[in-house]
Amino acid sequence: MAQAPERVLSIQSHVVFGYVGGKAAVFPLQCLGYDVDVVNTVNFSNHAGYGRSGGSKTTAAELNAIFESMEQNELLMPTRLLTGAEALSAVEKLASKLKHSRPSLIYLLDPVMGDAGRLYVAADVIPVYREMLPLATIITPNWFEVEILTDVQLNDSASLRKALSILHLQYHVPNVVISSIPLKQWLVDALPPSIRPPDGDHLLCITSSITNAPPSSSAPSLVHAQCVSTIPGYFSGVGDLFSALLLAHFHPHTSDTSSGASGATALSEAASQALAKTHTLLQVTHEQSMRLPAGERQPSDDELDSADPLRKTRRMRGRELALIQGQNIIRGADLDDTLPLKLWDSFWSQETVPAVV
Amino acid sequence: MAQAPERVLSIQSHVVFGYVGGKAAVFPLQCLGYDVDVVNTVNFSNHAGYGRSGGSKTTAAELNAIFESMEQNELLMPTRLLTGAEALSAVEKLASKLKHSRPSLIYLLDPVMGDAGRLYVAADVIPVYREMLPLATIITPNWFEVEILTDVQLNDSASLRKALSILHLQYHVPNVVISSIPLKQWLVDALPPSIRPPDGDHLLCITSSITNAPPSSSAPSLVHAQCVSTIPGYFSGVGDLFSALLLAHFHPHTSDTSSGASGATALSEAASQALAKTHTLLQVTHEQSMRLPAGERQPSDDELDSADPLRKTRRMRGRELALIQGQNIIRGADLDDTLPLKLWDSFWSQETVPAVV
Repeated sequence: MAQAPERVLSIQSHVVFGYVGGKAAVFPLQCLGYDVDVVNTVNFSNHAGYGRSGGSKTTAAELNAIFESMEQNELLMPTRLLTGAEALSAVEKLASKLKHSRPSLIYLLDPVMGDAGRLYVAADVIPVYREMLPLATIITPNWFEVEILTDVQLNDSASLRKALSILHLQYHVPNVVISSIPLKQWLVDALPPSIRPPDGDHLLCITSSITNAPPSSSAPSLVHAQCVSTIPGYFSGVGDLFSALLLAHFHPHTSDTSSGASGATALSEAASQALAKTHTLLQVTHEQSMRLPAGERQPSDDELDSADPLRKTRRMRGRELALIQGQNIIRGADLDDTLPLKLWDSFWSQETVPAVV
Repeated sequence: MAQAPERVLSIQSHVVFGYVGGKAAVFPLQCLGYDVDVVNTVNFSNHAGYGRSGGSKTTAAELNAIFESMEQNELLMPTRLLTGAEALSAVEKLASKLKHSRPSLIYLLDPVMGDAGRLYVAADVIPVYREMLPLATIITPNWFEVEILTDVQLNDSASLRKALSILHLQYHVPNVVISSIPLKQWLVDALPPSIRPPDGDHLLCITSSITNAPPSSSAPSLVHAQCVSTIPGYFSGVGDLFSALLLAHFHPHTSDTSSGASGATALSEAASQALAKTHTLLQVTHEQSMRLPAGERQPSDDELDSADPLRKTRRMRGRELALIQGQNIIRGADLDDTLPLKLWDSFWSQETVPAVV
């Protein structure tokens, strides 16, 4: 439960059925005690993964009319802001205004652009996100989005350090969280033993939080990380849920950001909560989907899917996040796993593993 | 928590800030274990009581595109339906289709038309609601809306019996709930002593549920009632919250609908829960608003309001339902009051109080 009355302004897509965008973010924030002002940037029947969807986007003029009325009515008073894909230029204008009128605004910007080497958005979106970065308190790019934002290909420790330096020092983003990182061998090798994953498939979550000391280009941040076991199958809305939980658990003024045995930061503490809750909720979702009739949990197969479009639709439906059934997890009950992020204290001092010794 | 996985299709207005329409209904339903498919019939900045609001209505074509895609994707599978104002013709078509394909659908129809003698909607809306009545499992008209739907002026016990007879026998509505009824003297006099209110201002809630026996025109239903003390001031979204809680707590197959000392029905049990939770949440809202700075809790005064429009806006803002702060009430904790509806066993047999003896 938030300690002081806090309002989140959430500007995200809306789907009638299922849990992505605002539908994945708003309920968790509400469960955790936040009043949420909910702006729908689209109103669609379902997420795009189903193949077809009906509905429409909210126009920039409609969004501006909403924001203007809120301002006139003195209702534009969020302490936190959460934005994802869609309606970028209207969001940029608003975020800039809000940040300037309330410098303490906590803004979580999820720069949704693509994944696994594929860009979802038009290329002209990239410079807009870059312009918005200095407004953000926290950003939650995936691995590919870090590459796009920084123009650095991530293929060794040095490039990862360079990318984080760019985000912190050039774009002045104080907090960066990269979750669901596929564990390439160089990354496993670079991890300190305390963070290195046990056997089996894992993904990595990294947080990087600028230190209170004047940022230095050689070590501008504290980096924390944790591995999490992979859950089979693809689930939609996971990033939206994770970002909402991260924002909900981020308490920069109550955490000790400078000391402590673990050197934990407000960011790494929030990410630990968000990671454990998201992971447990995904397990519940996976188990629930495994109990469905066979026809509703067919594995991905493009050929079979194209012969029978409902095959894909039913798979998607069976993999919607079990947000309602798992709401106690969101509230912090029914949570047996904890996944505390650990300090990666050698991150900035590590030598790049030489390609050839 | 709902016993079986249940989905509610909620078709209601959406506001960014505050809690009316879908914003008052969806979160409580989710807290009580329902997956909710959320169709937004409008997207406005705030409710109309603020005086100005920005945004737009969803067109009938947009709604139909959403419903069509959901149907094609096999996502139109609610076990319950909740509809309020707006988008009436699209809602009627859909409700009719859903009810015919799933006769067990539990449909709560809130026929929003007006209050306290004032019609909010165009007169041509009235026949549409009348056409929809036979589709409904539960309707939640207010006192004035009962008068409009039945064309009966409610000014004595006989007229109230006549209106309920019309709803049950002519429109085939199995369950009628009328809440927030101002207690006129004839109504107080008609109440059995067990239901008669103590001193102080009270409102009455009446439920009327057709009996399992073949409906007879002399006693077609079991009627229950309960008084609830008035909370000062006007709050928006109360009816939307009450209807959502009523739908959430309505379990026709688990309640004993025919016997028992109290003759309780699934409807009266659901209304008891909804009444207690709504009333407790309103108390929390009222107490919260009383702690606001003086400028944000000025009483209604049309003259002062028109001199300073923000005076009204701030009052409205201070009286938004404390849905988030009071979420434990919705879940059934923090609920010291219970307000069980009691059987009004003389309802159908009462003699009309003669005007002159």
